Amino acid sequence: MVSIMKISELSLETGAPLATIKFYLREGLLPAGELSAPNQATYGEAHVRRIHLIRALTDFGGLSVADTVRVIEAIDSELPLTRAFEIAQSTVSEHVDPESLDSDALDTVDSVLDGWGCEPNDPGRLAAARVVMNFRLTGHGADAVWLASFAEAAKLVAEADLDLVESREDLASKAETVVVGTVLGDALFAALRRSAQAASTVRRYGDPGRG
Amino acid sequence: MVSIMKISELSLETGAPLATIKFYLREGLLPAGELSAPNQATYGEAHVRRIHLIRALTDFGGLSVADTVRVIEAIDSELPLTRAFEIAQSTVSEHVDPESLDSDALDTVDSVLDGWGCEPNDPGRLAAARVVMNFRLTGHGADAVWLASFAEAAKLVAEADLDLVESREDLASKAETVVVGTVLGDALFAALRRSAQAASTVRRYGDPGRG
Repeated sequence: MVSIMKISELSLETGAPLATIKFYLREGLLPAGELSAPNQATYGEAHVRRIHLIRALTDFGGLSVADTVRVIEAIDSELPLTRAFEIAQSTVSEHVDPESLDSDALDTVDSVLDGWGCEPNDPGRLAAARVVMNFRLTGHGADAVWLASFAEAAKLVAEADLDLVESREDLASKAETVVVGTVLGDALFAALRRSAQAASTVRRYGDPGRG
Repeated sequence: MVSIMKISELSLETGAPLATIKFYLREGLLPAGELSAPNQATYGEAHVRRIHLIRALTDFGGLSVADTVRVIEAIDSELPLTRAFEIAQSTVSEHVDPESLDSDALDTVDSVLDGWGCEPNDPGRLAAARVVMNFRLTGHGADAVWLASFAEAAKLVAEADLDLVESREDLASKAETVVVGTVLGDALFAALRRSAQAASTVRRYGDPGRG
């Protein structure tokens, strides 16, 4: 493994185009390399990991450059974990105006979140109510048993998320895991849900290839 | 509740701009209204629900117009459920080239999906492997216990998804629930996961407001 490299080698190693890396450097997303000559900087493994982190946030999380900068700054500033989670959540989640929600949808979500101790402006609570409202508008509605299963599954995953964070050694690496785990975890869950649906569908209704 | 309306009333009822509704009609996303006069058509509750369905697919699922047409056609054609799930999955999920994945990431996912009977080209399996690979590249890696919890949660949710679909009366409404449930369910889970993380963080580390 190469541990000291020129910018062209950093590009080869990560698959990120040279122009992209220069853009990351200009925007402060990537720390400057070490000057080895007046016009030559070298980069290390930390730069490689940071580039993959930026790409995870932009490609999977769909974050803008401004939001990515905000999240990266939060990681670098070694915030307490509760703040790191808050920043990750508020950046990665869509902001929902409480005024746009009907009280029925909020009541439905609150009945599922009973005992969780959520704040009224908890971004997850508002986003969940928005989904429930939209599901109703399509004419079908999300029944209480379906919602309760999602809540149960979310609790299971959230505990695993926090265990993963706790397993990291230092604060910066914990904060980074919060952010990466939140963004990549959503994509992971969606993927595994598809596989589980496919598996359950075949079990319940038979294999379409043989049907 | 108004059950017969002019296009302007349909716009008011759904919040969709007139130009958007005309666009949906032109693209075949929305069935034509009933002609009440040579130049005047009326619309009903089915049109209201359909507009909300289209918006759920485009706003939450991020589907293109072409993909939305494909999914709506699948619903209207009253396909067997296994096919409806396949179309919903392949349209809503990102396509991952198996060649872009390393075998380590696939092995890790396969160890979690052990016994699910997934096909090698199962879109969920490939998408999950892509996430695992990207997680590793950020330098942290997704540990086996974390992945196993996601898989367990995904199974729970997939069973609830299928139960919800089975509770619908007719085939068209089942197929519509597959599609809406897949798209809105991802957003719902992400929202509830945020709330559950917030609740667990406060329980483990205390309230940041009091810290």
